[in-house]
Amino acid sequence: MLVIDPKQTPTRDLHQFLLGSVAPRPIAFVSTVDAEGRPNLAPYSFFNAFSSNPPILVFSSNRRVENNTTKDTLANVRATGEVVINMVNYAIVRQMAVTSVQFESGVSEFGKAGLTPIASDLVRPFRVKESPVHLECRVQEVLTLGEHGGAGHLVICEVLRMHIDEGVVDERNRIDPHKIDLMGRMGRAYYVRASGDAVHTIVQSVTDLTIGYDHLPEQIRHSKVLSGNNLGQLAGLTTAPTREEALALRESDERVRAILGSGDPLRELHEYARELLDADDRKRSYAAKVAWLGEFL
Amino acid sequence: MLVIDPKQTPTRDLHQFLLGSVAPRPIAFVSTVDAEGRPNLAPYSFFNAFSSNPPILVFSSNRRVENNTTKDTLANVRATGEVVINMVNYAIVRQMAVTSVQFESGVSEFGKAGLTPIASDLVRPFRVKESPVHLECRVQEVLTLGEHGGAGHLVICEVLRMHIDEGVVDERNRIDPHKIDLMGRMGRAYYVRASGDAVHTIVQSVTDLTIGYDHLPEQIRHSKVLSGNNLGQLAGLTTAPTREEALALRESDERVRAILGSGDPLRELHEYARELLDADDRKRSYAAKVAWLGEFL
Repeated sequence: MLVIDPKQTPTRDLHQFLLGSVAPRPIAFVSTVDAEGRPNLAPYSFFNAFSSNPPILVFSSNRRVENNTTKDTLANVRATGEVVINMVNYAIVRQMAVTSVQFESGVSEFGKAGLTPIASDLVRPFRVKESPVHLECRVQEVLTLGEHGGAGHLVICEVLRMHIDEGVVDERNRIDPHKIDLMGRMGRAYYVRASGDAVHTIVQSVTDLTIGYDHLPEQIRHSKVLSGNNLGQLAGLTTAPTREEALALRESDERVRAILGSGDPLRELHEYARELLDADDRKRSYAAKVAWLGEFL
Repeated sequence: MLVIDPKQTPTRDLHQFLLGSVAPRPIAFVSTVDAEGRPNLAPYSFFNAFSSNPPILVFSSNRRVENNTTKDTLANVRATGEVVINMVNYAIVRQMAVTSVQFESGVSEFGKAGLTPIASDLVRPFRVKESPVHLECRVQEVLTLGEHGGAGHLVICEVLRMHIDEGVVDERNRIDPHKIDLMGRMGRAYYVRASGDAVHTIVQSVTDLTIGYDHLPEQIRHSKVLSGNNLGQLAGLTTAPTREEALALRESDERVRAILGSGDPLRELHEYARELLDADDRKRSYAAKVAWLGEFL
């Protein structure tokens, strides 16, 4: 592996290694106003939620790597103690990109990007009308992480009120990733669109104990057919199939019957299990019976 | 829009609104050891980079919403002051999911998930061999955000050494999103795979001033054909096309010639510009000439 020692690495390169590794990052489209009430809008991807009770968001406005200057957002945060964090979906990502340009202080990025400022309920900064979620926040604290170019400032924000576009929730009032269609930030010029085929569903109970890799039969653990993800799917089941359940497949499943008459049944059972696991997570229990059958032959 | 007031919303629901909105989130696969040196491994998506000089990562180990207990990771961080943060790619995401199960203290999630612990160079916690990036860290500070279920603890980590799989960088030593194939966390059971067609490239100079939406011609700003993203692409150009450049298309571009003989040339020029903009960002300057041509007819 490449070994990167921060103290021996130029900040620009270290920055790119971090941006490429710690990804995909959510994008805070941060709206502030200066002491005169003039609006500012800028994207930050050193950002996340960190607590739900109280609801806390943190973003970092970094000293610029090239000239060690700080940004208008940080000055505004210090002057007013208020921000609105807007989320960025695919429909506005190109407009968001325009706001990352270093316009002069006092220029409204809303106007430069063609986005619509609307009044907030509880704070002075404007919300971005075109954004699917607006989070009105009070700044609790600003923590300075360093004094040189590239140094961050943790801006710790408490959410006072959320606004969510009704078009992005499902019938149970939960946010649907395909409807909200969020963009995430990666390294260099890369973004990820977090909807469609890129979205994967992984169901894993966290409170029920699971079989665990260490209790998988040896022939499964050392399979040349099953992938690490397949083993994870089997290890994540809460119960192993019984001998009776596995053996019953000899009657009920034609493909299993054909496999048992073949030259390398163990390998073919694993191939069958892999197909089931890769196709649909809900076939996990069935796939487990197929994979375990090799134990009982 | 739906209005969510945190103080009037059950923590479980607020938590889901935050998880669905603040996404996609990078995943810290956090390796720690307890005072006796026994390994622990758990995934956290309240996580991000926040500074590159010094290199600072922050993750939050939250009090459980259901019973207000804290996690082994937090106890280990407090006991030892060291962590290794490993990044999660598609190949190990199912094994990662197994480690989110609440096994008893002292059980090694490495064993339960079938992942391989390897020694770190500078800290006691193990690295995850199968992970594409390992970040050895010293914990600078733990900030407590609240006392109730759902409350976070900001674990502020300084990166001492990074290890990056040579297979995920390109010839210029930059991380390639398709090679590293990272997973991001979203709400509920959703993850995003940040590679392939989901990756978008957006080139926007941040130091050169751009045209800005406010300086786009009115016929472009009010176009019924061009999308918000298309306007962002045009507003993000550093120079507008000249009259001569636009008019020259009448000679050089057959499609433009055909459009100028049609019934609604303004609309058709916008449709042509939109096709170019949606197809390839590198056609932005050409698309601008097409869109601007309507000004000069």
